[in-house]
Amino acid sequence: MSRVIDAIASAPYTSLATLLLGMLPVWTQTGFAAEPAPKARTTAGILEASAATDWRVPDPGNVLYLDLAAGRVVIELAPVFAPEHAINLRALVRQKYFDGLTINRSQDNFVVQWGDADGTRSLGAARATLPPEFTVKAPASLPWVALPDADGFAPEAGFSAGFPAARDRSRGEAWLAHCYGMVGVGRANEPDSGNGAELYVVIGHAPRQLDRNIAVVGRVIKGIELLSTLPRGTGALGFYETPAERTSIVAVRVAADVPAAEREHLELLRTDTATFSALIEARRNRRDDWYQVPAGYVDLCNVPLPVRKSAAAR
Amino acid sequence: MSRVIDAIASAPYTSLATLLLGMLPVWTQTGFAAEPAPKARTTAGILEASAATDWRVPDPGNVLYLDLAAGRVVIELAPVFAPEHAINLRALVRQKYFDGLTINRSQDNFVVQWGDADGTRSLGAARATLPPEFTVKAPASLPWVALPDADGFAPEAGFSAGFPAARDRSRGEAWLAHCYGMVGVGRANEPDSGNGAELYVVIGHAPRQLDRNIAVVGRVIKGIELLSTLPRGTGALGFYETPAERTSIVAVRVAADVPAAEREHLELLRTDTATFSALIEARRNRRDDWYQVPAGYVDLCNVPLPVRKSAAAR
Repeated sequence: MSRVIDAIASAPYTSLATLLLGMLPVWTQTGFAAEPAPKARTTAGILEASAATDWRVPDPGNVLYLDLAAGRVVIELAPVFAPEHAINLRALVRQKYFDGLTINRSQDNFVVQWGDADGTRSLGAARATLPPEFTVKAPASLPWVALPDADGFAPEAGFSAGFPAARDRSRGEAWLAHCYGMVGVGRANEPDSGNGAELYVVIGHAPRQLDRNIAVVGRVIKGIELLSTLPRGTGALGFYETPAERTSIVAVRVAADVPAAEREHLELLRTDTATFSALIEARRNRRDDWYQVPAGYVDLCNVPLPVRKSAAAR
Repeated sequence: MSRVIDAIASAPYTSLATLLLGMLPVWTQTGFAAEPAPKARTTAGILEASAATDWRVPDPGNVLYLDLAAGRVVIELAPVFAPEHAINLRALVRQKYFDGLTINRSQDNFVVQWGDADGTRSLGAARATLPPEFTVKAPASLPWVALPDADGFAPEAGFSAGFPAARDRSRGEAWLAHCYGMVGVGRANEPDSGNGAELYVVIGHAPRQLDRNIAVVGRVIKGIELLSTLPRGTGALGFYETPAERTSIVAVRVAADVPAAEREHLELLRTDTATFSALIEARRNRRDDWYQVPAGYVDLCNVPLPVRKSAAAR
């Protein structure tokens, strides 16, 4: 008999279908061993009971498509946390800065990074340096849903407008957290040396030590497997040693600039809903039959941020 | 100019060469921008100053080679934490149970899993069920190096005999932690249903909710990129939907059973050394010039467990 371990990915990009399937208590490769009883407090039950209003469609002006020959990676930008970077990144995209550039780095359990490997392409109308935006001033109006558990890297961890985040009210600051799938802006040692022309995505255990040290601009909401499975670079820091090893970027586009027929139709579970708070609790204490001991805790980066096809596309 | 972010992988299998290179404060793809000044409290400085006695050679009787067409994955077993599982796993390996089986599952940000997809191969002399061994009784003699920071999933986190671990002294129990690269034994709902014939490795953000719920038997110390870059399965839970998508296992061997000329020659930094404690501190507060704000904290699964070629092989 084939034995499988409990199988919910904690991935922020976990599809609804995967979440639902993952909740079945016994699953073998030859079929479902038993009809599972509905579990009110499981992730599956919570999502099944969600209302249409629990979901949001991201603003297409804040969504980027990173198109590779193998498929499309969809990134939602977080302009609340890095407004100048979002503006510059859109300017780069709209002048087709990334088209024909390459993915230059894949370091296991850390990041995949793309940009201009030769460093010769003009930034055009985009700015070469930007204010750091490693943290933002956190007004009282900043959306915030607290994680109920303590976080080692910050006084408070939680979710803001759909993104994993942290804050320090004593300093009046908030910032995005380097969870799996988060997208940041490479920089050199100078804090203002990032401009959005070189981007990375986290493909391993959350490197939270980067928090507050670099600008995080968004999150991959679809297609991260196209990046996380790239062959690792064998050069220093996971850079590819030869140009032939790099993956070409066909194009990067702002979703709002793409004809409607060519757009992705995705919805994200709102993080400011009772449904999401119930999901957090379901992850803190797993109720699936498989579990013997619920953890009684959840790490910020282990809370899934569900994505599904929008109603019109289902 | 090409801009890169600070680039140390937190991977437990990080090679010494990568660690050293990753410490250089400014690195561009066209070369090293500056000769870095030695930093006594950086990971690089600490490892450069290490003594030969800070390193250990794993017992070849506790090392498995998972040989794929693409290369070799090396796993160190942790019999202190799962003695019955280690015995059964060696029995399976020595009857060539895994040879010709396949990798059946690759779920992004979670696990890669291998075993008998058809569930028809005989376990032979190996046992079909085992005591759970999700935790072990932790005697006072259990090796233990505490992480100085609090852990959300356990009363105490630290390192035991080279592995990331947790313990609860009030219950007299210790267990291995599901960090990136850790290897566990798949099971069905029954706690005793794991036997070692189906194994998984963590390839994403640590799913610590699995701790104390499943037997962890070891850690990948070399070659995890051969597993973490496998195409993700598109079936439920990341299983491959067709046999053609599976990766064949050429053979699994106990290192002690392999002729000396065909063995890997690896050393691991001992975790019960002042060098390792200094490394933890260097990771809690990064001193590289790139960092603006040290974290003042390190997550159990973000502490690298360095591996290098043994002296004779260098």
